[in-house]
Amino acid sequence: MNNMRLTLKSRPEGRLGPEHFDRVEEDLGPLADGKARIRVLYVSLDPAMRGWVSASTDSYLPPVPLGDTMRSLGVGVVEDSKSDAYKPGDWVTGMTGWTQFLDVGPGELSVVPQVASLEDYIGILGLPGATAWYGLVVEGEAKEGQTLCVTGAAGSVGSLVGQIGKALGLRVIGIAGTQEKCDWLVNDLSFDAALNYRTDDLDKGLKEFAPGGIDLHFENVGGDPFNAALKNMAPFGRMIFCGFISVYNGEATATPPEMTAIVRKRLTLKGYVMTDHFDKFPAIFQELGKLMMEGKLKYRLDVTTGLENAPTAFNKLFDGTNKGKLAVKVADL
Amino acid sequence: MNNMRLTLKSRPEGRLGPEHFDRVEEDLGPLADGKARIRVLYVSLDPAMRGWVSASTDSYLPPVPLGDTMRSLGVGVVEDSKSDAYKPGDWVTGMTGWTQFLDVGPGELSVVPQVASLEDYIGILGLPGATAWYGLVVEGEAKEGQTLCVTGAAGSVGSLVGQIGKALGLRVIGIAGTQEKCDWLVNDLSFDAALNYRTDDLDKGLKEFAPGGIDLHFENVGGDPFNAALKNMAPFGRMIFCGFISVYNGEATATPPEMTAIVRKRLTLKGYVMTDHFDKFPAIFQELGKLMMEGKLKYRLDVTTGLENAPTAFNKLFDGTNKGKLAVKVADL
Repeated sequence: MNNMRLTLKSRPEGRLGPEHFDRVEEDLGPLADGKARIRVLYVSLDPAMRGWVSASTDSYLPPVPLGDTMRSLGVGVVEDSKSDAYKPGDWVTGMTGWTQFLDVGPGELSVVPQVASLEDYIGILGLPGATAWYGLVVEGEAKEGQTLCVTGAAGSVGSLVGQIGKALGLRVIGIAGTQEKCDWLVNDLSFDAALNYRTDDLDKGLKEFAPGGIDLHFENVGGDPFNAALKNMAPFGRMIFCGFISVYNGEATATPPEMTAIVRKRLTLKGYVMTDHFDKFPAIFQELGKLMMEGKLKYRLDVTTGLENAPTAFNKLFDGTNKGKLAVKVADL
Repeated sequence: MNNMRLTLKSRPEGRLGPEHFDRVEEDLGPLADGKARIRVLYVSLDPAMRGWVSASTDSYLPPVPLGDTMRSLGVGVVEDSKSDAYKPGDWVTGMTGWTQFLDVGPGELSVVPQVASLEDYIGILGLPGATAWYGLVVEGEAKEGQTLCVTGAAGSVGSLVGQIGKALGLRVIGIAGTQEKCDWLVNDLSFDAALNYRTDDLDKGLKEFAPGGIDLHFENVGGDPFNAALKNMAPFGRMIFCGFISVYNGEATATPPEMTAIVRKRLTLKGYVMTDHFDKFPAIFQELGKLMMEGKLKYRLDVTTGLENAPTAFNKLFDGTNKGKLAVKVADL
């Protein structure tokens, strides 16, 4: 059986591109006892992956070694199994990597129930959904009636943060980077308001929306949108840090944030990494499943076809040109 | 009876100076029923006062109105009383302001027991002591065996943070601005190590002292020392924000902090203002009193004599030329 996978050839200084990967074609050989062979259907493209290819050992996961298959989340189907943990036709999720096929042992990937669409398992019922719920509800301690601001609001996590916030009775303002995204947030996702950080005066817009300040802020971006939110926090507010996509490529840093606000307003800032909390996923997916059935969570995927296109598609995250959750379709079910 | 007080004439752009105050000489007249007349003995000079004279209404206390007596903490003695709450000879602490005398009603100032020296009530048993204990133990959740870093380590709060940390069994490194201060921290206060931010490589020094990272950081200064600490935090560490003296005068901002560390290391950053927690002072002073009796808290005052010298003396805080807690002696007991 022939496989193709992309391995990390070199570490990018700035943006990731096809030049940083080798394309490996190989024959997989027979399946070993105790293993299952997975055909990958989608791989997920997430901002955090930019960190995984840097040499820094100062992060929550070790760097992807040079020569290894690129690490990524994905969903697949069991093609063949010599393990009791998997049976042919099972859907599986987890760290598949950028490969068409992989052989796994028990516990390496999770079998998911076929009660939602396959695509839901890289979105609402995948890492983005879990990240949004955990950050907003557990770390953020979201409460009905609060004012919530979210940056990267049209992204895979941000769009869910805002919708979960609305479902829980918060007032929600989103910050995004195009008018189309802002319109989508307000018209389709029922955000109370949206600001375009490329064209709107964020400070003015936030003051108008939240004259008493932001109670809870969810940060995906960093830079100027973060600074504007910090300036407009309510006393004793919470700022939850999910990501800082604006600086992942080592591009010019923004104006320094006005850190004294943390003291003056007695703020709590908290960073988290969802891969620390895999044990919480089942309970979170129960909650998200309820909201899905009530029609309260809309989601859109931005799909590129063909694993070989993953490195190029990845940069849509940093251009802000993706419309919804970015994924690569590796094969049909 | 003649009084002299300093009232706020104008708001400083940069540093505070004598030019921003009017000297008011007045006859106090007879004491009203229900009031006590306080003779102020010391007024405290604290970094937070720089914020109190700015026009911003975005802080935890309203700005001092132009024409009002400058707000400050102080200690005094009851000179005369027509109130059941105070009797002549009582020592009192609280917001006296920059005045030689003031008349107060019940609850405006606190009567303190005369079991320590008068000077202790503007230091260990005053706002600095309460601030140090609350920030380190309550907000910081300090635990035996942790590695603690404190900036402004030779200051009125920082020197107590480090000593309380040592008493609770933490390893303590202090960051200060002169070699004399660093020597004092290590030789007299038993800090495990000290770094001079003007001459030492902070990143290198912190890595040597805490190869596994800083568990708990106490911030008084901001700027480069903060950035170095952020870079060297341990996963799941806590950073407690008491103050940012480096930016209070609106001087040039430092290099932006590497905020992605908050996510990568899942940090919690928390700001607090001790004037929110007056109810906790008695319990905290019990604890601090015990440590004082065990000889575990050393403290030094830097006293300027004469209320009229308060505006000039204040800037020693920002030059870093004060040696210990800065105070102005207004009168002898």
